[in-house]
Amino acid sequence: MLGGSHAQAPKLAGFNRIGQVIAVVSGKGGVGKSSLTALLAVALGRQGQKVGVLDADITGPSIPKLFGLPAGGLRGNEAGILPAITRTGIRVVSANLMLPEEDAAVAWRGPLITGLIQQFWGQVLWGKLDTLLVDLPPGTSDPLLTVVRQMPLRGAVLVTSPQQLAALVVRKAVNLLKTLNVPVLGVVENLAYYPCPQSGEHHEVFGPSHAYEVAVAAGCDLLVRLPIDPSLTQLGDAGRIEEAELPELAPLVARLLGVVTQRAQA
Amino acid sequence: MLGGSHAQAPKLAGFNRIGQVIAVVSGKGGVGKSSLTALLAVALGRQGQKVGVLDADITGPSIPKLFGLPAGGLRGNEAGILPAITRTGIRVVSANLMLPEEDAAVAWRGPLITGLIQQFWGQVLWGKLDTLLVDLPPGTSDPLLTVVRQMPLRGAVLVTSPQQLAALVVRKAVNLLKTLNVPVLGVVENLAYYPCPQSGEHHEVFGPSHAYEVAVAAGCDLLVRLPIDPSLTQLGDAGRIEEAELPELAPLVARLLGVVTQRAQA
Repeated sequence: MLGGSHAQAPKLAGFNRIGQVIAVVSGKGGVGKSSLTALLAVALGRQGQKVGVLDADITGPSIPKLFGLPAGGLRGNEAGILPAITRTGIRVVSANLMLPEEDAAVAWRGPLITGLIQQFWGQVLWGKLDTLLVDLPPGTSDPLLTVVRQMPLRGAVLVTSPQQLAALVVRKAVNLLKTLNVPVLGVVENLAYYPCPQSGEHHEVFGPSHAYEVAVAAGCDLLVRLPIDPSLTQLGDAGRIEEAELPELAPLVARLLGVVTQRAQA
Repeated sequence: MLGGSHAQAPKLAGFNRIGQVIAVVSGKGGVGKSSLTALLAVALGRQGQKVGVLDADITGPSIPKLFGLPAGGLRGNEAGILPAITRTGIRVVSANLMLPEEDAAVAWRGPLITGLIQQFWGQVLWGKLDTLLVDLPPGTSDPLLTVVRQMPLRGAVLVTSPQQLAALVVRKAVNLLKTLNVPVLGVVENLAYYPCPQSGEHHEVFGPSHAYEVAVAAGCDLLVRLPIDPSLTQLGDAGRIEEAELPELAPLVARLLGVVTQRAQA
């Protein structure tokens, strides 16, 4: 089903076969990028894909918590680092899996962050994956540059939220991705509205949407608008994100599966 | 009213007199840290203070937008950089004020970020300020370390949001601040609930609060719980944050004013 794997660190080239690498980018923090990464991984897994998640948010890693993976869960041998594996078989690497406690204080300088992300790519025994999702931290600093330069990205999924302020910061990321020649595969607006459980009315609690502006700037479709969903927060807080149902993600999942097909045919 | 100014870059020591420097910290992005910084600046200004805001979020600067300050608004002469000044007289320095357009793509590496923050502290003609608020980006990386090591911080205001996931990442910042001997002056929980405009009921749209856990970890009071307020988003998006009324901030404002008094008496 998949085309050949991309170039990777030489010593693991024979072991790792990764179909596509997709970055999940926002520029702005707190728009639910990590939750979306986790939900996308779950959705792709339900489509039969083998999925990995590389948590490149070294100073604010959220991925292990969402999947209920404990701190200290990363193992290694002389061949490389073994990813942690979630209940449904998603392979995860994150700085939080290396720490003795999940809230341990680590003061990371830029070069250390860069080095760790490079290790997560070049020294992890990912094995055969259809899709590797890379969860990037907020900002347009070292982690984004490292991921774009070191990994064979097929493209990025952009996450934004309704505020114009968020849209502004996300547009910065869009412009940087353009400069770096990373195609944007789709835009997701998170926290778009709150469906009142009493009246069913959609409250735009963060103001009217500015996501279409972001999509226009990125030159791609706005694929998904997600509501504020307290049950999703609770599943994430309980480490049970794999039980979530999010049919709204279907167009984005189809796009990511389509990208694989297109490239495999090429 | 104020004690002596703190040590600063030697050449500006005669010109700049800064009563207290307060960092606004979260660790987690998107919890409304920049909005809170702006609202705190406005509230302190209304108490008669001269206030400056140093936007240390180099890659995702939000402060100028909130105050309606245009890109390119920073001027300088041979003596130093002149801050932009808001309608109510708050002095602001931000990376976005240096850019030709507010969504210009800038790829910043760690050392460049560190250097720019140092410039914002050491080469800006702040003049006489009662309070300088430093808006820190998410994460526990270069910017936080630079600010803690270079500036004479009186303490930090911690901003969190209800999700346990946010609380986890904020606790990381708490632990790092402890290691670095920066006292936490107060905890603010933002986005705590959404008051339904129809029923008046408080919906915990991001799940039940975990802010008290953060306050306990930080060894300080939970001073403020702020609701989700669409009108505040709109004022911020319109660059009119100075028109906001936020009486809930009073205990935190009193704490910050109190800190000044205590130090002046010491």
